[in-house]
Amino acid sequence: MRFTSETSSDGVTEQLFTLGEIPGVLWTPQGADGPRPLIVLGHGGGRHKRAPEVLVQAHRFVTVCGFAAVAVDVPGHGDRPTDPTYDRIAEENRARVAAGAELAPLIADFQALVARQTVPEWQAVLDAVQDLGTVGPGPVGYWGVSLGCGLGVPFVAAEPRIRAAVLGLGGALGSAGAAARITVPVEFLVQWDDERVPRDQCLRLFDAFASAEKTLHAHPGEHGDLPECETDSAVRFFRRHLG
Amino acid sequence: MRFTSETSSDGVTEQLFTLGEIPGVLWTPQGADGPRPLIVLGHGGGRHKRAPEVLVQAHRFVTVCGFAAVAVDVPGHGDRPTDPTYDRIAEENRARVAAGAELAPLIADFQALVARQTVPEWQAVLDAVQDLGTVGPGPVGYWGVSLGCGLGVPFVAAEPRIRAAVLGLGGALGSAGAAARITVPVEFLVQWDDERVPRDQCLRLFDAFASAEKTLHAHPGEHGDLPECETDSAVRFFRRHLG
Repeated sequence: MRFTSETSSDGVTEQLFTLGEIPGVLWTPQGADGPRPLIVLGHGGGRHKRAPEVLVQAHRFVTVCGFAAVAVDVPGHGDRPTDPTYDRIAEENRARVAAGAELAPLIADFQALVARQTVPEWQAVLDAVQDLGTVGPGPVGYWGVSLGCGLGVPFVAAEPRIRAAVLGLGGALGSAGAAARITVPVEFLVQWDDERVPRDQCLRLFDAFASAEKTLHAHPGEHGDLPECETDSAVRFFRRHLG
Repeated sequence: MRFTSETSSDGVTEQLFTLGEIPGVLWTPQGADGPRPLIVLGHGGGRHKRAPEVLVQAHRFVTVCGFAAVAVDVPGHGDRPTDPTYDRIAEENRARVAAGAELAPLIADFQALVARQTVPEWQAVLDAVQDLGTVGPGPVGYWGVSLGCGLGVPFVAAEPRIRAAVLGLGGALGSAGAAARITVPVEFLVQWDDERVPRDQCLRLFDAFASAEKTLHAHPGEHGDLPECETDSAVRFFRRHLG
């Protein structure tokens, strides 16, 4: 793990790093010392580790809860090179949709493929970050919607260190199997008029989680319209379960 | 409006009253003076104006927000005499269910009938309570689940003084029409494994509200298993919209 920059403002220290080929960013309270809970954040499709919605949520975890937060670029996103295999599949999918194919199953298959790479990558990041004195082996949460849900569900299912997860804007297709292996508390976000993930697919994914404690929050609006109040709700959720 | 008793404890003053034939209870902050937001609470079926879940929620509105809160007994409940007409219908419904009829449509029809009486009753209570110096003509919210939703939806639809509502554990049957006339912010609670209101009926009622701002909160569990965290969520919701 190699740190490439460090800046601090508004009580948050931001460190950019690379772990092998993976570019990442770690946020901790300014002047932090000693172990603390950690939230892994997964960004959305076409976004990156420092996209505004990720940044706002990560800063809130740090400033309100005193947690650490980490995000990395998904392959083909942010500071990572384009991946010829993923590019080819994305290209083929665009052609299929143009020819009238349904979008949701194509997205689901694609995310399942990418998850085979990201689950071990994120586990390696978790190992490395928990070795730091400012993070340590404390409880871990996962936050991710849209692509961050598609990749997050198999990650949370595979990773016993994750004790609670905020997920959403994702459907059962391709995710229900892994969701059925998740037993930690889940807060699940649905946009009632999601134009990318059919509503019944979202409800079926919520249904699939094996967690005894799970909550669905639904709001009117399209895929990109998630309201700001959910930022605070995620803070309360993780404070309750990891704090 | 005739007050019959007044007690104070833990910062809450509780006044029992009757308005004509309607027995009610008003909660205000101890030593309150001057106008403040008011929450009308509707109790569940077979319950009453001081049932524990109503009392806990009302106390929270008073102590956390400094609001006033009021609840009255629904006809045939609490301190009210049994009503021969309602009793006869309830008896007939029990016989129909025993003979294999579906429960939900019978409940919906029954609640619609009772609402014809409770909507004007609750409006009269609102008039009377808003005439008091400790309440005044401030913004009003409505909280009610189960029967409190079945009777609350037509009340909120009919009453322009209501600016926000927490509703839930109710279905679209018999309520969708009035819900489509509700445009104020709504927080709507669903129990995912509700044995009394089919899940798709609950989701259809959420769908029916015309409110631009509405949120659905769903939790696993049966009709009676609403988790405690929703008590605080209702407090935050009304503080946001009336505070």
